[in-house]
Parts: sequence; C-alpha cells; structure tokens
Amino acid sequence: MQVQPVDRLSYQPLIDAALREDLGSAGDVTTNSVVLPDSVITARIVCRQDGVLAGLPVALDVFGTYEPDIVIEPLRRDGEVVRAGDCVAALEGPARAILTCERTALNFLIRLSGIASATRRAVEAVGPHKARIACTRKTTPGLRLIEKYAVRAGGGVNHRFGLFDGVLIKDNHIVAAGGLAAAVARVRAAVGHMTKVEVECDTLAQVELALDVGVDAILLDNMTPDDITIAVDLVAGRALTEASGGITPQSVGDYAATGVDLISLGWLTHSVTGLDIGLDV
Amino acid sequence: MQVQPVDRLSYQPLIDAALREDLGSAGDVTTNSVVLPDSVITARIVCRQDGVLAGLPVALDVFGTYEPDIVIEPLRRDGEVVRAGDCVAALEGPARAILTCERTALNFLIRLSGIASATRRAVEAVGPHKARIACTRKTTPGLRLIEKYAVRAGGGVNHRFGLFDGVLIKDNHIVAAGGLAAAVARVRAAVGHMTKVEVECDTLAQVELALDVGVDAILLDNMTPDDITIAVDLVAGRALTEASGGITPQSVGDYAATGVDLISLGWLTHSVTGLDIGLDV
Amino acid sequence: MQVQPVDRLSYQPLIDAALREDLGSAGDVTTNSVVLPDSVITARIVCRQDGVLAGLPVALDVFGTYEPDIVIEPLRRDGEVVRAGDCVAALEGPARAILTCERTALNFLIRLSGIASATRRAVEAVGPHKARIACTRKTTPGLRLIEKYAVRAGGGVNHRFGLFDGVLIKDNHIVAAGGLAAAVARVRAAVGHMTKVEVECDTLAQVELALDVGVDAILLDNMTPDDITIAVDLVAGRALTEASGGITPQSVGDYAATGVDLISLGWLTHSVTGLDIGLDV
Amino acid sequence: MQVQPVDRLSYQPLIDAALREDLGSAGDVTTNSVVLPDSVITARIVCRQDGVLAGLPVALDVFGTYEPDIVIEPLRRDGEVVRAGDCVAALEGPARAILTCERTALNFLIRLSGIASATRRAVEAVGPHKARIACTRKTTPGLRLIEKYAVRAGGGVNHRFGLFDGVLIKDNHIVAAGGLAAAVARVRAAVGHMTKVEVECDTLAQVELALDVGVDAILLDNMTPDDITIAVDLVAGRALTEASGGITPQSVGDYAATGVDLISLGWLTHSVTGLDIGLDV
Amino acid sequence: MQVQPVDRLSYQPLIDAALREDLGSAGDVTTNSVVLPDSVITARIVCRQDGVLAGLPVALDVFGTYEPDIVIEPLRRDGEVVRAGDCVAALEGPARAILTCERTALNFLIRLSGIASATRRAVEAVGPHKARIACTRKTTPGLRLIEKYAVRAGGGVNHRFGLFDGVLIKDNHIVAAGGLAAAVARVRAAVGHMTKVEVECDTLAQVELALDVGVDAILLDNMTPDDITIAVDLVAGRALTEASGGITPQSVGDYAATGVDLISLGWLTHSVTGLDIGLDV
Amino acid sequence: MQVQPVDRLSYQPLIDAALREDLGSAGDVTTNSVVLPDSVITARIVCRQDGVLAGLPVALDVFGTYEPDIVIEPLRRDGEVVRAGDCVAALEGPARAILTCERTALNFLIRLSGIASATRRAVEAVGPHKARIACTRKTTPGLRLIEKYAVRAGGGVNHRFGLFDGVLIKDNHIVAAGGLAAAVARVRAAVGHMTKVEVECDTLAQVELALDVGVDAILLDNMTPDDITIAVDLVAGRALTEASGGITPQSVGDYAATGVDLISLGWLTHSVTGLDIGLDV
Repeated sequence: MQVQPVDRLSYQPLIDAALREDLGSAGDVTTNSVVLPDSVITARIVCRQDGVLAGLPVALDVFGTYEPDIVIEPLRRDGEVVRAGDCVAALEGPARAILTCERTALNFLIRLSGIASATRRAVEAVGPHKARIACTRKTTPGLRLIEKYAVRAGGGVNHRFGLFDGVLIKDNHIVAAGGLAAAVARVRAAVGHMTKVEVECDTLAQVELALDVGVDAILLDNMTPDDITIAVDLVAGRALTEASGGITPQSVGDYAATGVDLISLGWLTHSVTGLDIGLDV
Repeated sequence: MQVQPVDRLSYQPLIDAALREDLGSAGDVTTNSVVLPDSVITARIVCRQDGVLAGLPVALDVFGTYEPDIVIEPLRRDGEVVRAGDCVAALEGPARAILTCERTALNFLIRLSGIASATRRAVEAVGPHKARIACTRKTTPGLRLIEKYAVRAGGGVNHRFGLFDGVLIKDNHIVAAGGLAAAVARVRAAVGHMTKVEVECDTLAQVELALDVGVDAILLDNMTPDDITIAVDLVAGRALTEASGGITPQSVGDYAATGVDLISLGWLTHSVTGLDIGLDV
Repeated sequence: MQVQPVDRLSYQPLIDAALREDLGSAGDVTTNSVVLPDSVITARIVCRQDGVLAGLPVALDVFGTYEPDIVIEPLRRDGEVVRAGDCVAALEGPARAILTCERTALNFLIRLSGIASATRRAVEAVGPHKARIACTRKTTPGLRLIEKYAVRAGGGVNHRFGLFDGVLIKDNHIVAAGGLAAAVARVRAAVGHMTKVEVECDTLAQVELALDVGVDAILLDNMTPDDITIAVDLVAGRALTEASGGITPQSVGDYAATGVDLISLGWLTHSVTGLDIGLDV
Repeated sequence: MQVQPVDRLSYQPLIDAALREDLGSAGDVTTNSVVLPDSVITARIVCRQDGVLAGLPVALDVFGTYEPDIVIEPLRRDGEVVRAGDCVAALEGPARAILTCERTALNFLIRLSGIASATRRAVEAVGPHKARIACTRKTTPGLRLIEKYAVRAGGGVNHRFGLFDGVLIKDNHIVAAGGLAAAVARVRAAVGHMTKVEVECDTLAQVELALDVGVDAILLDNMTPDDITIAVDLVAGRALTEASGGITPQSVGDYAATGVDLISLGWLTHSVTGLDIGLDV
Repeated sequence: MQVQPVDRLSYQPLIDAALREDLGSAGDVTTNSVVLPDSVITARIVCRQDGVLAGLPVALDVFGTYEPDIVIEPLRRDGEVVRAGDCVAALEGPARAILTCERTALNFLIRLSGIASATRRAVEAVGPHKARIACTRKTTPGLRLIEKYAVRAGGGVNHRFGLFDGVLIKDNHIVAAGGLAAAVARVRAAVGHMTKVEVECDTLAQVELALDVGVDAILLDNMTPDDITIAVDLVAGRALTEASGGITPQSVGDYAATGVDLISLGWLTHSVTGLDIGLDV
Repeated sequence: MQVQPVDRLSYQPLIDAALREDLGSAGDVTTNSVVLPDSVITARIVCRQDGVLAGLPVALDVFGTYEPDIVIEPLRRDGEVVRAGDCVAALEGPARAILTCERTALNFLIRLSGIASATRRAVEAVGPHKARIACTRKTTPGLRLIEKYAVRAGGGVNHRFGLFDGVLIKDNHIVAAGGLAAAVARVRAAVGHMTKVEVECDTLAQVELALDVGVDAILLDNMTPDDITIAVDLVAGRALTEASGGITPQSVGDYAATGVDLISLGWLTHSVTGLDIGLDV
C-alpha cells in the first residue's frame, strides 16, 4: 500500500525557506560565475548506502521550485527499499539550476530517508509480533509534518501530531488534577467526541485505575519488558497499550515480545543519521 | 570568549513555526482541560547527560513567546560544558503555559546541544594541532543559522553560510569551465573584493594548479591523511588548507596531525544525536 | 467550568490582517484629521441585545495590538450570558487609537458572540436529553479556530477541526472503496492509534454493517427523528451516535429526544446572525 | 455589465489559509486512506436553492491551488441568478484532490453567494426608486475584499473599503473637533483632493450645517423614512444622501421611497445566511 | 498642524525586512567580534545638511525592534525644518545593538527626509499661489506608504495611493471606451459613491468635454503654463485642476502662477536625493 | 560577459508587495470599469532617455505574476546600453492586465536602470585606470539585492551585501577594542576562514598599522586623491585599497588616477535619478 502522503501545500514553505537560506543575498556566486547560462546537463540522484527512501517528492520539488524548466523523472517511490548504487531520480535541464539546488534537495532527502531507514530497522526488529512502531513529538522544530511522513514511509505509524489532536495525560497533569481519575474526568468533559484519551502510567496500580475510569490507550512509561508483559495481561484488550521510554534499537524486540500494541521511539526523529545519497552529473 | 550570537530576529520565526506546529488547531487540549488557568508552578531545565550547552536563549524564548508572564532565569551560558544533573535554567509562572511549551523548547535545546557536544568532541580530538573544526552546508533545511551557531558554541568555526558568501569551486564547476584555471579566472572577474575563493582538489596536481592561479583556500577532498600531509607541505602556507570527506569521529585526530588548517565535518549537522535534557516541575 | 481557550498565537494573525484591511494605505484619515494626537478618552463595550459573550479577548487584543498604551479592563468572560445594556469591557487611552480600532474589534466580537448565542439556544432546546450540540467544518474560511471556540463558549462541543484530526467516511468514500467494510479496513490500516473513525450512514442496514466492522461513531445522515430513534436503539451504546442534516433550530428538540449522543449543526457557523454590541465613548 | 472583479492576488492568501486550516497536520486522512491515488472522477457544483451566484472563481481556484491537474469548467458567472438544480461548474480530475477540496471550496461559494443573494433581494425591494444598496465596514475580519465583491455581484455598490479611502465624520469626531464645521475644516486641510467627505447627521439641523460647510455626502443616521424624506428635500441634490441604521429587509422599500441616493445595510455582511450549494460526484 | 501619521502596523514589515537584509545569515560579525556584549554607549542622530525631517519614528523603531533595551529620545518632529548640526534624536543602550542598527535606521531617515526636503522646496517655489504640491504613483516598489508620508511631512498632499482609491481616466482608457464621455459613464456606473473621478486631458477640447460630462478633477497633461492658464479659466472652478508632466524644480513657480489647484511631481519620489544625516557615538 | 543574475525567488516577494500596494482594496477601478475583460492589446516598453538597462526581468515578471496569459518578449538584456527610442520588450495580452501592471513594472525598471546608468557613468569616468566602482550598504530598505544587481548591470562590483558577509572595522569598532590591532585580532579569532577583513583608515599611520597586523583590504576614508596616492604606494599591493567618502561624479576620475583598487560610492543607491522609460500601447 502506498504511504499516506504529505500535502505539497504543507511542505512548500519549507522548500522556499531552505532555498532562500542557501541562496542568501547573492545566490550561487560560484555557479553563476563559472557555468554559462545556456549550459544543459543531465544528472541522477543515486543512493550510496542501503536504506528506505523518503522525501523524494520534496527533494524533486526543490528543483522544480527554483527552475520549472528542469525535466524531472522520479524512478523510485517513497517507502521502497533502496540499495547503494540505486538511481532514484533523473534530471535534465539548465546546469546552473541543477547545481544550485543540489545541496538543498539532498539535505531533505538524506534526512528523511535516514528517518525512514531507522524506522524500518525498528519495524524489522519487531519481527512476528503485533507491535507497531510509532514516533513521538520529539521532532525537529518546524519539520514535524515531513518527519512524521518519513516514519510512515519506513513502515511506522504516527502518534498524535501535536498537543491538539489527542489527549495524553502525563504525571504533571495527574498531580495538577489531584489524581488520575479526576484528570480523565476533566478531559472527558472538555474535549470533543473525536478525540482519543491516553494516560501515561508508571505502575500497575495506575494501569488498573486507568482501566477503571476507562481510557482509549495506556502509555506504559519506562517499564521493563517483564513489567510490560504483566501490564498487557492486566489490560487484556480493554485499551491500547503503548511501551515508551528507554527503548533502544537493541531492545525493541524484547519490548515487542511483551504483546504490547505500540512501541514509541523518540530517537527516530530526535537523533537522525542521514542516509548517504548523492547527485551525479 | 563569548560565542558569536545569533540574532533573535533570525530565529524568532522558527519559534513561531514550532509552537504553531505543536499547538495546531485546538492548542494543548490535555493541559487546558486538566490544569486550572490560575495555577502557578516552578520548573527547572536539567541536563540528564554530559555535553556542551547550546540553544538556551532559543529555548527560553519559546516560553517567553507563548506567555510573557513566565519569569525566566538562565543559569548557564551557551558554550559551557554541562554535566548530568546540572540545572541550566529556572522558570516560574502559569502552569498551563510552562507545560504547553515544554516539548517545543526542549526540541530546540536537545538538538542544538547535541550539535555543540559533537563539535566539542571533534575539537578535543584535534588535540594540540592547529586544525579548526568547521561545519558544512549539510544542515537541516531552514535551521542552518541556529545549527551553525551550535557549531560555534561547541568550539567550531563556520564555513560559508550558503552559496552566496564564499566561492567554492567543485569538480562540476571545473568541468563546466574547461579547467581549474579558467574556473578561477571567471570567478575573479565576477565576484566582489570581499568574497574569498576556495577550490576543491582531488589530486596533488590540482593543488599545484590552484596555487599557480592563486586561491584563498584549498579543499582537499576525500584524501588520506598521508596525502593531505603531502598536500599541506606543498601548499606551504600559500593558501588555507581544508580536509573534507570521509572523516569520522575516530579519524579526526589523524587528519589534524597532517597540519591542515581546517577539518570540515558534514555529520556535525546532518546526523545529530540529541543531548538528553528534560524539564522538572 | 471555563471555556477551553484559543491560543493568542493562533488568532493574532487574524487581528493583524483585519487591522491592515481597515487601515489600508492611509490609515484612519478621518480620525487623524479631526482628533488631536494627545486626546484621551474612556470607552465601554456594551451589549445592545441578550446573548452569550464570545471573542472578548480577541476584540480587546485588537486595541492592544494597535496601541499598547490603551488600558483595557475586561468585565465579563466568554461563555457568560449577557443582557442588553451590560458593559463587558472598559477602555481608557488615546482617543485616536480607540476610535480607529472600534469597528475591527466589534466585527470580531459581534460575529463570535452571534455564534455562541445560537449555540446556546440549541443547547437549551436539547433540554433534559443527553445530546451535545456540535459544529461542523462549514465555517468561515480562515476563521475556523475562533468560530469553533465560539461554539465551545456557547456550550457546544467541537467535531473534528479539519480533515486531519479524525476520520469521517462519507458516501463517496464508501463508493470508492467498494463498500463500507472495505473503507473502514483501509482506514484502520493507515491511520494512527489516536485517530477516531466515524462513518456516515443513510440507512439502518448501513448502521448494522458499521457496527459489525466496528467504528467509534456513526453519523446518522438526513434521517427523521423516528428513524434515528430506531438507529440509536440498534446501536445500543456500541458506538457514539450523531444526528446531522436538515436539523433546524425548531427541530433540535425532536432530534434530542431520540437519545442520540450528538447533534451537529452546520448553520451554527455558515449562517451567523451577529449579536448587537457597540462601543460607547 | 460584468461585475467589477476582485484580483486573484488579493484572495489567493485566503485560499491558502483556508486549505491549510482544513488540511492541518496530516491532510485528508480519510480520503488518502480510502481512495486510490490514480482514481479519477467527474463532479459538478450544483445549487440546491435559488439565489445569486458569487465567488465561483474563488471556489474553483481552491481546486486549482491544491491540484493543477483538475480540469475546471465554469458554467455560470458571478452575478447571475441561479435556480435550485443549476449546475454552475464541472470538474474532472484526481478523485482524492476533488474530495479533499470540496468543503473549502463550498465554504467560500456558499457564503459569498449568500451575501449576493441577500443584496439582490434588497435591490429588488428598492423597486423603481433610484436608491442604490451599499454595504458597510461590518464585514468578516480578513474577508472584506471578497465580501464587498459579493455585494457588487448582488447588484449593490461598495461604500468605502476601510478607514483610508474616504472620510466619514461621525458623532465622536464632531465632539472631538468641537463641532461639525470644525471637523470638516480639519479634514479638508489634511486629506488629498481624491478623497470624498461624508458626515453622519442625526438631525435636520446637522444636515443644514453640513450643507453650509459643503460635503460630498450626508449619512442620515437612524432616521425614520419620514424624516429622511424631509432631509432629502432639504439637501436638494447639493450632496449625496445615504440612509443608514435600523433598516430591515422589510423596510428597505420604505426607505427607498424617500428619494435617498443610497441605503447602506450592515446585515448584508455581518449576518449572512449561506446559499445552499453542493458538490455531486 | 501635525503631519498625518503613518501607522506603525504599516511600516513595521519594512523595518523587519530591512534589518533581516542587513543581518543576513551571520549578523553583524564585525561588531559582535569586537565589541563586548555588556558595553553601553550614547549616540546622537545629527543632520549634516539643511532640510526637512521625515521618517524619524521609522528610524527610531529600527533600534527598538532590534533591541528593546535601547532608551530612545526623539528631539525633533517630522515635518520640521532642520539645519546642519541639529541633533534630532538621542540614544543610549547596548553598544552592539546601536552600531548594528545604525545603517538600516539611517537608510530610512536619509531617504524620507530627502523626499520631504524636495517637497518643501517645491512648496516654497509655489510662493503666494494656491497650488498644492502632490506626489504620484511613481514611488519605490513597496515603500509607497512611507514615501507618501514623507511628501506630507514636506508640506505636500497625496494624490491617490494606488489604482483602488480614485479613478484616473488616461488616454488608453479613453481609446478603450471609444471616447471620454463613454469612459466617464462606464466609471460612474461601476464605482461607489465615495470614489472621485479625474480625467487626463491633453487639449482644451478634451477639457470642455470633461466639464460637460462632469468630473471631480481634470489632469492637464504635459501642457505649457500658458495653456494651463487658459484651461484653468475655462474650468472656472467647476472641477479641480491639476498640472502634471514635464514640470521641473525650476518651472514649478511658473505652473503655480497659472492658478491651477494642484501640481503633481513624479520626481519627488522616483528620483530622490537623500538628506545627509549621520550617527555620532 | 553576462551580468551575475539575481534569483527570482529573491525578488518575487518585492513584486508581490508592489502589486498589492497598487491594487489595494479594490484593484484597478478605472481600467476594470472602462476596458472590456476580453479586450486584447499589444504594448512596447520604450526608453525615452539614453542609459543602461537594468531590471527588465523583474519588470516583465510583474506582468507575468499578475496575468500568466500575457505573452512577453524581452528584446534587450540587462547591462546593455540603450538609447532614447529603443524598444526593450514587447507585450501582447489582456488589455486590462497590461494597463494595470504598467506603473508597477515601470517603477522597478526606471529605478534600477537609473542605478545602472549612474554606475556606468562612474565606470566610464575611471577611464584607463584599474579602479573598479563599488556600491555600499546605503541602499533602499528592502531592495538591496536588486539595487546591488543594478550596480553589477552598470559595470560595477558589489561590496559586502550586509553586516554578515564581510568584516569592515570602522572607527567606533577600533575605539571599542582599544586599538586597531586589538580589533583585528578579535575578529580573526571569531570569524570563519571564508570571511575577508577590511579596516577603515583615516590616516597613513593607521594604514601602516593595518598592514602590520595584516588585513585583506583597507578603506581609505575621506582622504584627498593626493593622500590616497601616498597610501596606495605605501600599501604596495599587500592589501586591496578602497577609496570612499566625499567622492562626487566629478571627482571619480581623480580618485581613479591614484591607483586605488576600488572606489565605493554611496550615491549610486541612496540618491537615484530614474531613467525615463515608458509603455506605449
């Protein structure tokens, strides 16, 4: 199935900002000095490392934004596994424009493919278990929409996009409300019927309390796989269960084996290793 | 010496975008449902890991942007070494606002401190040699100014900020011009007197050619430390020398030992590991 | 309980746009010609009609945006019932600024209070029944956040804010998927765990089908109160039920009597009658 | 004669804002989950109620903004009378895009056609008299330009667009200046020769005074039709006369019969009833 | 009488753009390298040439925008005659901020005072005659509002601000309409009652025609003073008369002597000589 | 050689702002009233004065921005010498759009060609000497990029674009650092290797000091040609030399004869005389 897309209207401002940042006051002074205005080239975007592709439409729209005369041919799709040496897109057009846009386009593609690749590795670590890999709100400021998209491209699912599209009651909220039950009650009275409610629980006692008042999901925070196994049994399908906190690439499998529904991983987006991708003229 | 600052006028749009992204349509529905509007708290921003601090003014301006009534006290300065457990700032004010801004503020601080910490480690790996650690244009789209600032906070220096404030003649430019000398000549004729010219060289022959035509700096691309040692000797101070390409955290020291003036590292900004920092209420 | 607020960061751009639209090229040429720059006045915002107040912080921020020296005292709160003659805020400051901002401020207040008042009348028509009054996406382009806020101020609840924060499967989606069950299955596979799923049903057969595949809510579209009573019995609490389509201010009570959970009304926002409010100097 | 158009440059930002507001963080999750990306449909925009069309170019540009590949054929023109069942435009293109844009496009069209239809009814109520129907500054914040355009489409005329393009001396201005004559004198000294001057008069004495000092137009505020008849006789063509304040759809005809030049109606724009228009796939 | 002001809301975007343009990517690298962050200075803005002051609030807001801690004291007012050596404002605050903002602030002040000074010279050349000096739409793109303000500060009056706030029928319009009378008739039918109508006339025959159909003002285009004298006599107060085209600083007096009401001068804004003003630390 | 271009992405916001400023609230009321919507015309942009062309792509993009259906044919290129009577571009398309855009397009072209023409006259005054003509930061706020481009079109070179892309140590900086040597040292420690350093010198003693510490360029401020001749000899190629301050169109040749490398002229951009260019239908 195709990856749920991100609207161009949503990422176009990021492209504009990135191009303006690189063009600055005087534009590409090197290229404009050295390359003749009517010079035409062909170029290929090529992976130099294995991984999962994400952000190709964004990267290609960088070229199209700067110079509509570039003929752009995508050869692979976001979400596909790519190997070192794979050509993911071909370009033909004004040499100046292609060279000028190279770095900005690759900066998007390298980062988003890095996120998708890390997500894919976590998904594979889950193995035969049912757990889905989810991201968090620990994203790069301003780039959340495309980073959440990259997680989808890697086979993960999105948690809420922000503070607005889902309730997550954390410890400070429980303290402020004077208890978990009171916090849930206040939320139920205030939010619309399309908003789901999740509660962060540190102990089994809290899990039982959450089940009593009724919630859509329970975030099992900073628990060991053993504790989570017990919690999942306790919940017994009465709510979605989510493991979160302190889970490393190495321990994803252990957490998946607990039977939990979701494993959320902040490092998918707060600590990205770019996927090496280049442009060959 | 204090870190060269980044203007608030430059990063304020990033704060606005990050807050809007997290507040979305309905704002912080959890906090606004659970926490009373007149509730006041104190909170502390605390490091959970050793590293170098960067982005504290940005993070604190997140709180100030959303709610001017929060009293904000910075306790440490960007560029300082911090240890796990160090409190870097104290906040007091409306509980709702502090909880609402927590994640957005930390997203800036964690990322920028991660860059500064990685830079510092590279600087330390240089040891007694003269080489300075520089960043590249492989930055997060839209965040270049604050990421370059984080490199400065870590003790590194900034290469050019974009295509506009320095000439860097690469292989494709040399091909387009029909040779290195022609490329440099075209550039000299076109750019102003305040713009420096650097040439990317893959071989010692190119280095000699670059010295013949006269350039301000020579980027020694993807060379081994041994080759760079030879190149540095060849240049003999007639231009700045920069090592770049394929240098890892482990090999920084070897490259520094070549006597090169600059070592530029793309992974300082394209593959960031966040520094763990949290907010305690 | 206080109305769930709307963030100033969200509505400030609307204030700026509204002021710029009214100031245009030359500003308030009448006031600037006639009133001396150091003239100071007091003014009161006064209701000329009974209703429910909404948008007072927005209206007052119009004055504060244009001229920080105006002393502004809100006397009533959004969500409160107001009577003709009630003074809801007092202003003191430069005469020029107060006169210049008058119309822009009132345009916000009159419209939002009109929405809140209509919502309140619908809530009252529900009487002792459990149904909650909800708004739709039929809002003024660009003003959705503050119009949804006005519905909350009137005692209503918000449906999803847009296409992004909830799934609503309509007839065209069912056709495209080749059936209701297939549509729900595709959605479940694609969206995150924090997203609720609602299906629009025109017939009882569709309602049964929706219950079979399992959904969070069922929108009973364009049905008579009698049919909805049957549908609600059929659902029997297995999903939330929502009545929508063709419901008038007069028939709200009949629909509420069906036992439905929600009644959604497009005219709350697409056909607004402003509440008469003025400014007395 | 064709309606005086509104520039696309003026309303494009409204389209962008409206689409962004509806797409939010994740876009149309329902449609993108259910409808295949290469699915193509035809659709028709159809009136479900009699009225006057306004805003069709704006509504159609919503589709074109989101997806340039949609083939759009307008079938009617703004300002034309439409009947229930009339198809005003045909669309063919990607199913996803058409379904995603439906509500945003209709929100513009329904509102603007509602304004045009109300204006037309007022124009018809004027009957054989010479009075022209004008709107006021009581418009939706941010939408004034397209709402004033809708009034033109309905056969009305525009009063000034804001505080900048015409002088309207009201009671507070007269008080501030120490009299009507002083206020007019101050204005004449300050504004350019292309700016017209209107004075709001509550009494016949004020009308006489205004005629003495010479003004371009006189706004007869909150007067009965009988008083306005007397005032119009008194003015005898020496200035334009405008009736304003407390005029209802029912009393428009009575006011027109007074011989007044203009009748301005705030409710044309501050209390809009949308015209029912839908999209059939 | 005080100069009709320009709203800060209107010019603030110009200040932001100008500062961003000068700060660019790295900010004021010289000042931030050399001057200590806690260094404080006093500075004075001093005229180095005689003229008329305009733009002081704009220039001072540059400093306040960048650094709210600067204490700013304006000593003179826009519209006042200044002499070489006059100090027009005093500043005290962070040395870095004052040095950083110097050029941007002066760029506004020098240009706007240049416009005001040229306007004043034209006004003085009118001498005892009644003609008022007006500007045109030949302004710097994006700066029209503040340039028109500078003309007011110099004692001139503003013509229309753009295409929207006044009708000016030119030769191409007359050709398109098939004659002057037809053009005026079409305009009368289309525009609101607050819009004035002016016609550009090249010959006395056209002037007579314009008077026949009735217009608010007649622009006498590219006529000699002698012809204008005849035209003014012909008009005899039935419309405002405006001389335009080919009028130089030297010939303003001759045109004023014709008895014309207005003399409009494009060079007031399209060919500005800055007034020399500097900042002394 | 072709003029180094300015990116459309950089100047498009200026076009949008300029068009919005002229269209204002109601658009071109004259043209829209008088000219039929389907009327088509051809038009030519014609020089009425000798000079150097600059800004033609910007001016033509004004038409294209407003109405993509206009067929635009540039006939001359920026940087070319033009004579009175020369046609520089031909247009064919909707009459309304061409007339509406005329003034905004010409406002760009007239100003930028004025700058280019003044630059060319200065370049010609240099005669056989090696000095290049440079501009300063005394540009119109917000228009620096296109004004610096116009200087290039006239044959000049650009100094730094702002505070960020070059170090220029002035007298206040020297005072703040406690001496020229200290200032240069602080700068060297703080800025990256791609940034050049220039020092402003008022005396020969300062020049010697600057040479001792080593700088890239020396600005000889407000010196007579005789003093500059001595300074240039003293420098003897060890740094670039720049003459600045008090140089008039008449004295450019005298300064060029000193052997200085650069002559920078603020009046190229702060005091522009537009080049007379019109549009013939």
